[in-house]
Amino acid sequence: MTDLIITNAVVVTADGANTLLEKGGVAVSNGKITHIASAETLAAMEGQAKRVIDASGMLLMPGLINTHCHAADSLFRGLVEDLKLEPWLQTVWKAEAAILNPQTTHLGSVLGFAELLLGGVTTVMDMFWYPSETVRAARDVGVRVSTGGIFFDYPGVNGQSQVQREAIAEAFFEEFGNVDDVFPAVLPHGTYTVSPEHLKIAHAIAEKHGGLFCTHVAETAAERTDIETRYGRPVVQHLEQHGLINQRSVFAHCVHLDDAEIEILARRGATVSHNPMSNLKLASGFARVPDMLKAGINVTLGTDGAISGNDLDMWMALRLAATVHKAVARDAEVVTTREALAMVTINGAKALNAADRIGSLEVGKLADMVLLDLKRPHAVPMFDPLTHLVYSTAKSDVRHVFLGGEQVVRDGALTRLDIADTLDQVQALVPRIKASIA
Amino acid sequence: MTDLIITNAVVVTADGANTLLEKGGVAVSNGKITHIASAETLAAMEGQAKRVIDASGMLLMPGLINTHCHAADSLFRGLVEDLKLEPWLQTVWKAEAAILNPQTTHLGSVLGFAELLLGGVTTVMDMFWYPSETVRAARDVGVRVSTGGIFFDYPGVNGQSQVQREAIAEAFFEEFGNVDDVFPAVLPHGTYTVSPEHLKIAHAIAEKHGGLFCTHVAETAAERTDIETRYGRPVVQHLEQHGLINQRSVFAHCVHLDDAEIEILARRGATVSHNPMSNLKLASGFARVPDMLKAGINVTLGTDGAISGNDLDMWMALRLAATVHKAVARDAEVVTTREALAMVTINGAKALNAADRIGSLEVGKLADMVLLDLKRPHAVPMFDPLTHLVYSTAKSDVRHVFLGGEQVVRDGALTRLDIADTLDQVQALVPRIKASIA
Ligand SMILES: [Zn+2]
Ligand SMILES: [Zn+2]
Repeated sequence: MTDLIITNAVVVTADGANTLLEKGGVAVSNGKITHIASAETLAAMEGQAKRVIDASGMLLMPGLINTHCHAADSLFRGLVEDLKLEPWLQTVWKAEAAILNPQTTHLGSVLGFAELLLGGVTTVMDMFWYPSETVRAARDVGVRVSTGGIFFDYPGVNGQSQVQREAIAEAFFEEFGNVDDVFPAVLPHGTYTVSPEHLKIAHAIAEKHGGLFCTHVAETAAERTDIETRYGRPVVQHLEQHGLINQRSVFAHCVHLDDAEIEILARRGATVSHNPMSNLKLASGFARVPDMLKAGINVTLGTDGAISGNDLDMWMALRLAATVHKAVARDAEVVTTREALAMVTINGAKALNAADRIGSLEVGKLADMVLLDLKRPHAVPMFDPLTHLVYSTAKSDVRHVFLGGEQVVRDGALTRLDIADTLDQVQALVPRIKASIA
Repeated sequence: MTDLIITNAVVVTADGANTLLEKGGVAVSNGKITHIASAETLAAMEGQAKRVIDASGMLLMPGLINTHCHAADSLFRGLVEDLKLEPWLQTVWKAEAAILNPQTTHLGSVLGFAELLLGGVTTVMDMFWYPSETVRAARDVGVRVSTGGIFFDYPGVNGQSQVQREAIAEAFFEEFGNVDDVFPAVLPHGTYTVSPEHLKIAHAIAEKHGGLFCTHVAETAAERTDIETRYGRPVVQHLEQHGLINQRSVFAHCVHLDDAEIEILARRGATVSHNPMSNLKLASGFARVPDMLKAGINVTLGTDGAISGNDLDMWMALRLAATVHKAVARDAEVVTTREALAMVTINGAKALNAADRIGSLEVGKLADMVLLDLKRPHAVPMFDPLTHLVYSTAKSDVRHVFLGGEQVVRDGALTRLDIADTLDQVQALVPRIKASIA
């Protein structure tokens, strides 16, 4: 018995060969894709299917993967603006410390994940203070999440000690190590906020469980200088020196790298999570994405948090990744359409060590899928579906989203929860948030 | 008698003082704004109003102004990709020559204007081959347009002679010189495609009628070098030499300017129409926007055509203008929120010599207005409406649009025409368009 057939769509599989179907779809059973076929072939199966969706005028593609986010920071969207990074961060941390607890973290994470899912994102790597609340929020909304214990050598928002942080990181793997909607990680904040000793402990926990190791790397020129001053080498060299880079490393930003650092990341098989909107707005600079691609690095995309964005729009990240570097390089041929599309799909899956399960429409993979409306003025004419996705699609084109075959967005609305309640609860927090920095 | 009251909105007037109302709106009579007031004050007028809109949960602002577009080029969106500028332009021109006539120009312009209006743009400066078709399309959709005769020293798409082009440019002022939905202009294509003699004729026609003078300026480094080689000076100096710059000049792009050229534009009171998405995608480079603002130049924003975009999203242009230059300058304080918002509102009105009629919500101005939905996850919380507009708003937040008090977009749909018909007609052209470059 087939649970679901989606047919008559333009299909962008985003598989290795970038297979396209002009008119076709998928069959889904038990949350997985069982067939990818033409509308004609699927027609013969429709009698046996519990549900058939006629996706005429729509484009079917895999759910997007956002490899760097702090979803709960959406609570502070637009709170602090027009400040240089240092005073900006101090003010943000003040607000975070006053407001965040497990409950508000859950609320903010629901807000962030809701925005992401409505924009077609089905998997998010998220770094935040209460990782089990992050998982709870992801499940309430209907996205997969990669997260885990955070390391930070200061009391931080929740005042935890190093011992407590290690225990939480370990416990996360116990609790979420064997489910298919969580990709467990250990997430030390950065080399400038976590000592080499603690980075090594974080890495050892990740390695012990075969988990991911995610940290901020070389976001700003000041950070690079800071690490060089303290440790005598730039950030990637510093991580390399301590044996902290491998194919389960996901390094956010990597704006300020030299050639040798790019070579190390390529050789170690690490992932770079590029966050173009954050890098632009915070004036961090331009990551050397064309050089990274040339070196063979697995480049993925992230939105970063909404305090540096101020939204969580993966289509914006995609458009920026595909265009900004052309202007920097003065070469319209750098970052091709296919390279850009891979960043939000299969490369994201590779980053999470999950390319066997997500990141493309392929038989046997989880049915994480997006249907985009093509009956929009900016979608017509459409000479090439890939070009349309990279250079014309907007988040509002996302009409339906499926997570493991379950419809989690229907006609632009979440199915698992009522977003209006969340918005009201966030709005009710506003006076307290404002007061926190007054 | 009041025709329309919109109340209970967050109001961003975008006037000189950036007046905000937390809960209020406008009253409109005979297409013009008669009151801007709090909800309380407006409540007393509601009994006398033909129509009252409760805009709770929405933000009211002036319609956006796009100062550089080629709307009908939307027919060729995504047709030619991944080519360097020169072969790209040759292929585009081949397709244009094969497809464009008055009828297809009208169709493509309707497509482009529909996309713009749905995104909250109520006024567009458009350069294209059949200007009276452009006006007809603008009226069919419901936007104001600044356009007029195009000059081009080659047969171009329509094979007109210079004499014919001059006659058309003159006739345009006769026909559209005294209406409030057209801002007549003369639009020579560029200094590299129009001789100084013909530029001077174009300028003289514009001056004679008090019209606008719009051309492409210094879009690429190659263009700058070309003009320097041919005429011994860079593009703005070349225009200045021939007396072609004043406060009715609207110069698109201006990517490659030196300090002296910026000083000339500032001194002459010219407008620079910045087109960030086009400049990024075509690898043209980064316009010196912070330097232009510092010099006091009136900087506005454009989408350029959808062949260099590939959409016509003024919110994207706004976001890029507000963020890209921060990364270029490595300074998060360049291009402030207020400066960016002015580019899509009052500065656009100044560019069109129409700041007395459009570009802000002020008593006596035309009621060109947008209502944005704030009940969206990326709009909550909203600590500052201006920050929200520049850094979080998406085109899909546009719910209702009014042109001179007439509702031209209702709940995200055009009221004057059925966009589905337009999309079908464009789709029917696709085989011919493909064949044109085969
Ligand atoms: Zn981050
Ligand atoms: Zn142009």
